[in-house]
Amino acid sequence: MTKKKLPEWAPENAGKEFASSVMPGVKIENKLKKKVVKRPQLSIDDYYYGILNQNRVILSKAITLIESNNTNHIQKSQELIKKIIPYSGKSVRIGITGPPGAGKSTFIESLGLFLSKNSLKVAVLAIDPSSTVTKGSILGDKTRMELLSREDNAYIRPSPSSGTLGGVAQKTRETILLCEAAGFDVILIETIGVGQNEITVRSMVDFFLLILLPGSGDELQGIKKGVVELADLIVINKADGDYKERASITQAAYTSALRLLESPTEGIKPKVMTSSAINHIGIENVWSYINEFMIHIKNTKIFEKRRNEQMLYWVNSMLEEAILINFFNNPKIKELKKELDTKVLNAQITPSNAVFALLEEYFGNK
Amino acid sequence: MTKKKLPEWAPENAGKEFASSVMPGVKIENKLKKKVVKRPQLSIDDYYYGILNQNRVILSKAITLIESNNTNHIQKSQELIKKIIPYSGKSVRIGITGPPGAGKSTFIESLGLFLSKNSLKVAVLAIDPSSTVTKGSILGDKTRMELLSREDNAYIRPSPSSGTLGGVAQKTRETILLCEAAGFDVILIETIGVGQNEITVRSMVDFFLLILLPGSGDELQGIKKGVVELADLIVINKADGDYKERASITQAAYTSALRLLESPTEGIKPKVMTSSAINHIGIENVWSYINEFMIHIKNTKIFEKRRNEQMLYWVNSMLEEAILINFFNNPKIKELKKELDTKVLNAQITPSNAVFALLEEYFGNK
Repeated sequence: MTKKKLPEWAPENAGKEFASSVMPGVKIENKLKKKVVKRPQLSIDDYYYGILNQNRVILSKAITLIESNNTNHIQKSQELIKKIIPYSGKSVRIGITGPPGAGKSTFIESLGLFLSKNSLKVAVLAIDPSSTVTKGSILGDKTRMELLSREDNAYIRPSPSSGTLGGVAQKTRETILLCEAAGFDVILIETIGVGQNEITVRSMVDFFLLILLPGSGDELQGIKKGVVELADLIVINKADGDYKERASITQAAYTSALRLLESPTEGIKPKVMTSSAINHIGIENVWSYINEFMIHIKNTKIFEKRRNEQMLYWVNSMLEEAILINFFNNPKIKELKKELDTKVLNAQITPSNAVFALLEEYFGNK
Repeated sequence: MTKKKLPEWAPENAGKEFASSVMPGVKIENKLKKKVVKRPQLSIDDYYYGILNQNRVILSKAITLIESNNTNHIQKSQELIKKIIPYSGKSVRIGITGPPGAGKSTFIESLGLFLSKNSLKVAVLAIDPSSTVTKGSILGDKTRMELLSREDNAYIRPSPSSGTLGGVAQKTRETILLCEAAGFDVILIETIGVGQNEITVRSMVDFFLLILLPGSGDELQGIKKGVVELADLIVINKADGDYKERASITQAAYTSALRLLESPTEGIKPKVMTSSAINHIGIENVWSYINEFMIHIKNTKIFEKRRNEQMLYWVNSMLEEAILINFFNNPKIKELKKELDTKVLNAQITPSNAVFALLEEYFGNK
């Protein structure tokens, strides 16, 4: 078996498992033969040109490649990403979050339709580390985005269904690059589920939007700690009918509150607006505000600085996660830590000595 | 040389470096002999009984021992901490922060004097990773705490002057335990400087207090992102003379804003009060609120749960810091990372491949 018979994306020291054809002279039973026949694999160039030619089917396949945890797929996808990076970066990246019931999907569909009708190409991605449960995931909401999914200018991609948050985040970041190379002007990234998602999404977008419900202006709405301070814009959705007045009250309350909080983007006070996404009201205002915002951050070089910082943050967060997972998921460390945690709580060992013991176990055994 | 000649805190496999007396029969020159003479070292029991007997001089020496980064001192201090832990934990631990100019030191002195006059023993600690600059450190503020430092019931300890934030935090946590064993009823921990201090201090206290200035109710006051959501109580200080009305406006503004934010302590909405620390006005109200709060969290078991979580968080944060420092401070990693970061920004390598290369360098060489 020669190297030539291996597909080009096979690692240098790869064995037969990468063979793209069977060795000559080996007799194979019919049943087995059938299994060997498979769909033709796309080459990196197939993906590359397909994406640059804005071929949706190939884009979808490329995203699937990126989402794969198979070592060879990772290698292939990295080569692809390296090739497309020069064509990426030109979109407006928008993160969207909000508590359940605020109408995030309706809002995204309405905004997507507006952009699409205005000849802008929009991709909708979702980030959801808990999507194995499919609770509230974009897949489940597919019917609600039915109109948008029929638009030629729109592309909806459900969230990757496996991996830790860091892993999902990495794949979402890479998916953004592919979508940009495929010519999308606006990327909407919806956060779903709980946890640290909002901070992670804030670290990959230019603009972060928080969607809330009309209320009495003094209730919590289930927004996690710190999330209000991540938003460049808060939209009080469902501002229609009986809720219109309440929406104004909520708008006023958040407008006041935001004055006392730190801005997520240097020199720009976050704004609060209202919308009725189901009636497509307020959407245009939101978009023109985002446009103003983008012009401002580009003029002041905040855009460039933030994009660079986000690239390095991406590297650092992947590294930190990998380093910490290697430690905390080490079976010996896991076992010893469980034991020492109990001892710490029972005052049988000091926290510092527990730490020394764990570090010695880890670094001593390397 | 026999083990018996070694001090009791020497490690089992210790060599001559732990000798508490010179070996017989060795001739020592006079000059050298002079250098060998030193102050008698306190034994762990000396520290232990000294602290339990509330001896301030010994407490101070014990804190100095804890602050030392010398391996033998660390070992000794850990043995001491293990012995005193059963006597610790009984104080009310209060974190205090606020922007420069809000009158933190004046407030702490006034609260300290009030507690002291009410027969409560109060220790004031500071956490300041940047204190090598002594900018705004508690040492520089000594004169402002002059009255408090003369009180028999008060003990003021400047912040440790070296180490990373994690290191300083660890030493502050251990100092809290010593102060509690020495009979202090209230520990006030002041945060100074910038960075992640507030989150770290929140992770070691029962109650977190943010001191602000009277204002127009819509200015930022230089509070870092997320800090408002850490506070169990906001005190608008300097509510006197011309500023009294402004203080009320600021109080109202923060009261409204806090309704829209997540509470740091389950089930308890943070409160906003006013004070004039320099005139000792409002201090008693603050203390009775803290008392109410403590009774509530003890009754609802939040206290116990949080203290346990804080112990384990302490272990985890020390571990994470040690693991990440080992990686990011590795000279080869540092060099390679600098190089790869540049390549990532110039699109010469993908972020994921940069991460793979760094991980291989680190784990491959272990």
